[in-house]
Amino acid sequence: MHGVTRTVVGAVGDELTHQTLENLVNQFPQAVESVMPIQKRFKLVSREAHPANSTVTLRDRGIVVGGRKIQIMAGPCSVESERQLLATAEAVKAAGATILRGGAFKPRTSPYEFQGLGVRGLKLLAKARKETGLAIITELLSEDHADLVGECADIIQIGARNAQNFQLLIAAARTGKPVLLKRGPSMRIEEWLLAGEYVLSSDNPNLLFCERGIRTVETYTRNTLDLSTIPIIKKESHCPIVIDPSQGCGRAELVMAMCKGAVAMGADGLLIEVHPNPAEALSDGAQQLNLEDFARLMSELKPFIAAVGRE
Amino acid sequence: MHGVTRTVVGAVGDELTHQTLENLVNQFPQAVESVMPIQKRFKLVSREAHPANSTVTLRDRGIVVGGRKIQIMAGPCSVESERQLLATAEAVKAAGATILRGGAFKPRTSPYEFQGLGVRGLKLLAKARKETGLAIITELLSEDHADLVGECADIIQIGARNAQNFQLLIAAARTGKPVLLKRGPSMRIEEWLLAGEYVLSSDNPNLLFCERGIRTVETYTRNTLDLSTIPIIKKESHCPIVIDPSQGCGRAELVMAMCKGAVAMGADGLLIEVHPNPAEALSDGAQQLNLEDFARLMSELKPFIAAVGRE
Amino acid sequence: MHGVTRTVVGAVGDELTHQTLENLVNQFPQAVESVMPIQKRFKLVSREAHPANSTVTLRDRGIVVGGRKIQIMAGPCSVESERQLLATAEAVKAAGATILRGGAFKPRTSPYEFQGLGVRGLKLLAKARKETGLAIITELLSEDHADLVGECADIIQIGARNAQNFQLLIAAARTGKPVLLKRGPSMRIEEWLLAGEYVLSSDNPNLLFCERGIRTVETYTRNTLDLSTIPIIKKESHCPIVIDPSQGCGRAELVMAMCKGAVAMGADGLLIEVHPNPAEALSDGAQQLNLEDFARLMSELKPFIAAVGRE
Amino acid sequence: MHGVTRTVVGAVGDELTHQTLENLVNQFPQAVESVMPIQKRFKLVSREAHPANSTVTLRDRGIVVGGRKIQIMAGPCSVESERQLLATAEAVKAAGATILRGGAFKPRTSPYEFQGLGVRGLKLLAKARKETGLAIITELLSEDHADLVGECADIIQIGARNAQNFQLLIAAARTGKPVLLKRGPSMRIEEWLLAGEYVLSSDNPNLLFCERGIRTVETYTRNTLDLSTIPIIKKESHCPIVIDPSQGCGRAELVMAMCKGAVAMGADGLLIEVHPNPAEALSDGAQQLNLEDFARLMSELKPFIAAVGRE
Repeated sequence: MHGVTRTVVGAVGDELTHQTLENLVNQFPQAVESVMPIQKRFKLVSREAHPANSTVTLRDRGIVVGGRKIQIMAGPCSVESERQLLATAEAVKAAGATILRGGAFKPRTSPYEFQGLGVRGLKLLAKARKETGLAIITELLSEDHADLVGECADIIQIGARNAQNFQLLIAAARTGKPVLLKRGPSMRIEEWLLAGEYVLSSDNPNLLFCERGIRTVETYTRNTLDLSTIPIIKKESHCPIVIDPSQGCGRAELVMAMCKGAVAMGADGLLIEVHPNPAEALSDGAQQLNLEDFARLMSELKPFIAAVGRE
Repeated sequence: MHGVTRTVVGAVGDELTHQTLENLVNQFPQAVESVMPIQKRFKLVSREAHPANSTVTLRDRGIVVGGRKIQIMAGPCSVESERQLLATAEAVKAAGATILRGGAFKPRTSPYEFQGLGVRGLKLLAKARKETGLAIITELLSEDHADLVGECADIIQIGARNAQNFQLLIAAARTGKPVLLKRGPSMRIEEWLLAGEYVLSSDNPNLLFCERGIRTVETYTRNTLDLSTIPIIKKESHCPIVIDPSQGCGRAELVMAMCKGAVAMGADGLLIEVHPNPAEALSDGAQQLNLEDFARLMSELKPFIAAVGRE
Repeated sequence: MHGVTRTVVGAVGDELTHQTLENLVNQFPQAVESVMPIQKRFKLVSREAHPANSTVTLRDRGIVVGGRKIQIMAGPCSVESERQLLATAEAVKAAGATILRGGAFKPRTSPYEFQGLGVRGLKLLAKARKETGLAIITELLSEDHADLVGECADIIQIGARNAQNFQLLIAAARTGKPVLLKRGPSMRIEEWLLAGEYVLSSDNPNLLFCERGIRTVETYTRNTLDLSTIPIIKKESHCPIVIDPSQGCGRAELVMAMCKGAVAMGADGLLIEVHPNPAEALSDGAQQLNLEDFARLMSELKPFIAAVGRE
Repeated sequence: MHGVTRTVVGAVGDELTHQTLENLVNQFPQAVESVMPIQKRFKLVSREAHPANSTVTLRDRGIVVGGRKIQIMAGPCSVESERQLLATAEAVKAAGATILRGGAFKPRTSPYEFQGLGVRGLKLLAKARKETGLAIITELLSEDHADLVGECADIIQIGARNAQNFQLLIAAARTGKPVLLKRGPSMRIEEWLLAGEYVLSSDNPNLLFCERGIRTVETYTRNTLDLSTIPIIKKESHCPIVIDPSQGCGRAELVMAMCKGAVAMGADGLLIEVHPNPAEALSDGAQQLNLEDFARLMSELKPFIAAVGRE
């Protein structure tokens, strides 16, 4: 195609070879100014591959994420003790949550910070699951723990720092349990979809995307929660989308408003940090709601859930 | 205050002199490692200065921004012709908008792009105002046009690229007309509040903050609309907050969802680009809604407006 | 062009109409998935338009920016007093600088910070110019001051906050004086080149680009100085490139290293903040060098200037 | 400490408990507005812990990183074949490199892209090491491969995507081999230092920091290479710093200039992608130098190495 100032050459074919085309810029710098890929790089997660919304059913619990009901996942940042976990579990269940979150293995910026109770934390989660009937979501940090975590969890969480730790994604997928994939702090949406592709291409169709904010120039909030991901993931993919306003804001006082926005925009679930006594939390105290505030949140969300025609 | 590894010295006093304190790091690098300012730097815009919400009344129109009613500002990106403007004005009024937006002077990334109709655009806005009774919001680009724009507009818009063009802010403030201050694409919230301080300290109390997205690593959307600014501005300031989802997303298809979220989170107004024929728009066609989609948006917003207890 | 999953349509023609093409996505969302512009949007600043390096000669001074000699522009952030300015001017001249910088009109984040001496500052700069023979660079903040600043300055500086204040760019260009255009804090290189296009298309060929850092997620430094702009501007444009390490780092202690890197990478000039007593500076004290450090810097730069074969 | 508008309370003590202090904002929102940590959070990597520069010696090779000699690490992005690897190894050795880089396990954004030769790649690296005497640096992707990679490599590379995969960092550290830790794409310098702390606190003193660019709003380059990290890491830490201009730019044409800047600013090493035929590379072809360009680079770097007084 000859224009006045440039000639454009179109290349038809499969993406698996397009890397070679991009190399043309390097090989023939005088002749090829730039190569622009046109094909979308994700397949199995794409809406094209699966036009209907897909849902994720937590196996023996009858909980469906991505269906009519907005699922609330709530619980402490870290599992700290039996008392703390069970008190939270009962309170969030009473307020309407169906899934209990709690970190047993915690990724911490500094090696000197609390790293989680580990296996003992998993056992406490299993106990809470048994006693309350809540499903469990907890984070997987190490490939070596995939079986251990997969046994305990109804949903395996991949944290933001590991969102492109593809070996971990594959290990999580292979447990057969649903995988909730947080967006990395500087991940573009296309890269997030491609990371999800690692799960689906490992023969695990049960993938949930979870927006938890990206790092931007703003320092008032810990991250900038990008709620536009809700309509975008709905457009590009068939997988459910969950919003984590606690990580997104890093401030309990903003969580309420962010939840209302997320529900109004079509989120399939919310992942909220709740602690019986945030001021004594061993991690991320500033962003955890106490039990009363959580109950109030659940109550205030009702008109917005009704407004989107969901439960 | 002596700790094991550091000694902390506290300094009490007025911010007007703290610059000198920060210089200590430079003057005594061996003695002073860092200086951390503690005082908030904004005053007149702060919630402390004015605990109640302030409202902005468009003078002879009885339109109150920041009150119970969520005000919808809608219209074309650029004023292009009398026909285009009046058709849009009538349609957005019929759908429930109270304020007509339209750019007469347009800041464009390239000098070769359409720069707006200028004075002729202002005249068309005045005509639309007269014929429809809608209030007018339009952008001020140059100090030299402050009087001209101030005469025509009920709200003077300061665009994102000029958000720290303080001379322009002062010129706008001095017209006495309400000023809508967009957030710059890499402005921190504190800087935005301080830019607003330029308006209030120029003896103009009628300031509206307008979030329109910040530039981040994401390239799927033109900007990342930061809806957390709604509860944050409400917390830190008494001034109303307006959301611009059109600039925020750059994609008409996402505007609907962003508006629902903004309303649910407590926005006092929405600024939406609407064009009778977006495909022929002279600027930003990809992000403008057509008249039918706008009417549908207004209708779909109703349950969310009800859910926040507003009109 | 028909591929397996997509059909690509090529469109040949002038950029002045391509906006309409991008609108196709909005008009025919079922038919057109995306529109990718291929033509470069800048013309006059491009290397294609002027294959040789262009140089900027300061009219009556015999100083050439963009030639063999690396020009050093040094002086205080703000002009504060005759004594301060002249002491700095003499010291930087003695150390090898050829151009004196100094702000008379200062853009400040807060209205309560020192805003510069204004016209009195310009007069002091004129005096320093006469007494030392140094050329003068100073910032233009307001269209209304274009003639005033143009009379005094040998180079008019457009600051980062005004980098897309196109009216100001045009006003600066029309004075006929060389214009130094700083990169805005979240400006992409293409946008910076397009902003430069506003100067060249206003019939002023004397444009200098000045990199001063972009705002990123890093908070250790005030900005992230992007030294890759040196080879990029050299590749894409014929205009000289100047580096401002003082704004770029916000820390005097890093300026030395940044200058060495900038020289090694091919910068045509350096813009450095120098103050006889940084600890008492009225603005940005933490990033200004004192006179001895500046002299030491100039001396330490020599082997790097030699290594790039310049003077 | 009582000021006019605020009261500041100082708290003295150990960082291991400061999390609890930050929780005060949540517990007593009426009483505590904010908590500002003052203590630096990193210890073993800090300059305070080890005032002299530390050096990393590659055990049986007599290669010292962080000493007078700037070490050049060069080789292909991916190990593709014996012929490709050995041709590169011999060429880079002849040009002056002392360390051969090459990826056997490759982290790829998409599961459909070339994932590396795996164990076969490691064997080829071992062969190249034996035949040329070059030391080897290669990336570790999975905890399960730590022993395997540790056996083959003289330096274990932790890639940017895994920079906060702390389990992997610990596994790498425990091999006893030197660890090169790339900066994550949105990591602040403090977080990078803290990630390094995971290595040193796992009883492995041989840590190299490697800047490879952060993701910013700029899209011209793949990342924005932040050369200010060189003086900053030198100031804050005793560990050597290596620059990776290939990842940093994503464009071979910019690598030359970036290397000159890095050397001038004090980098202890360079990590450069070199391929005998970049246009046929299986990964990242656009950013790899060919053998002639690499030889030319090494020759052009000489005056800059001399200018910093190194070898």
